[in-house]
Amino acid sequence: MSELALHPAAQDLLFRQARTANTFTTEPVTDQQVRAIYDLVKYAPTAYNQSPLRIVLVRTDEARERLLRHMAEGNRPKTAAAPLVAILAADNEFHHELPTLLPHFPQAKDVLFADRPVREESALVNATLQAAYFILGVRAAGLAAGPMTGFDFPGVRKEFLDDDHTPLMVVNIGHPGTNAWFPRAPRLAYDEVVTTA
Amino acid sequence: MSELALHPAAQDLLFRQARTANTFTTEPVTDQQVRAIYDLVKYAPTAYNQSPLRIVLVRTDEARERLLRHMAEGNRPKTAAAPLVAILAADNEFHHELPTLLPHFPQAKDVLFADRPVREESALVNATLQAAYFILGVRAAGLAAGPMTGFDFPGVRKEFLDDDHTPLMVVNIGHPGTNAWFPRAPRLAYDEVVTTA
Repeated sequence: MSELALHPAAQDLLFRQARTANTFTTEPVTDQQVRAIYDLVKYAPTAYNQSPLRIVLVRTDEARERLLRHMAEGNRPKTAAAPLVAILAADNEFHHELPTLLPHFPQAKDVLFADRPVREESALVNATLQAAYFILGVRAAGLAAGPMTGFDFPGVRKEFLDDDHTPLMVVNIGHPGTNAWFPRAPRLAYDEVVTTA
Repeated sequence: MSELALHPAAQDLLFRQARTANTFTTEPVTDQQVRAIYDLVKYAPTAYNQSPLRIVLVRTDEARERLLRHMAEGNRPKTAAAPLVAILAADNEFHHELPTLLPHFPQAKDVLFADRPVREESALVNATLQAAYFILGVRAAGLAAGPMTGFDFPGVRKEFLDDDHTPLMVVNIGHPGTNAWFPRAPRLAYDEVVTTA
């Protein structure tokens, strides 16, 4: 008897068989696919619906070259080869959208988020939640994601973002190629993670 | 033509129809359900497979009372009524498990994560990714999640955790009750979130 309502094929697609890919085929990832991913994962929750995630799709060869210079050496070949590379960032000025995003509490913009350090902390946490939703959304599109934090953060920020946007991770996206992954590493057992009070 | 490989029923279960619940029925949430959720979401990626999320299930009436005292007033009634309440936290000493979790790079423990401030930053981001996976895992079990950050963080840390564990959020879990949610708030349009370089 399964304890899960989610169909086993969907469990496999999103969690059990999905893996972080290190190689990709040349099959392109279209803007229509990214749009479908976004239109699915945008519904997952953030605090006060603040939705601070911003995404830069690195589409031109010139932009890819600029990005590669800031990637850790071990991440360069796969970032060069991925059909699509996305830079995920947190918008530290997300509060400007709150009157639209939170119509039953439009004062949140000024009452809760007037201070930049408060916004930065909140944007980091909530854009990170959305980055996780996005990774699963990539998998929901039948694609493999390769999230990476091995890059020069100030460099990527300077090249692709601005003072109001903080990079979180770079994600390679595509169909897995040959030898796309390492053997699955162990996970912690339930009793190592979950305790009861 | 759909751009997504995920079955529409699974899209609905996890994203489109799932909502942050504010009321719950009295139907219990079992440890078997939590175990099934964990055994699904544990596979989703973290940096260096560090897996820093830790979960405290608040099961006793006494522990629930202690937790309620630290919740923001607006969150108290639903936290009192939820069949199960979970405290999600980041383990800042996750590096002790790295030789097991990252068998192909066991030196990561000392090479990358010898310094506590580095670990705290990494644990916050990666446990937050896992918190997002967990929320979707709760939905995968056919349950509603009610994640909250409106509580006294130092108070919850002192009552339920220790200096090595940082609280992230408190999540109410159960079957949605009557008037379980507000109307769905707007989301940002694709072009407000995604740009191209």
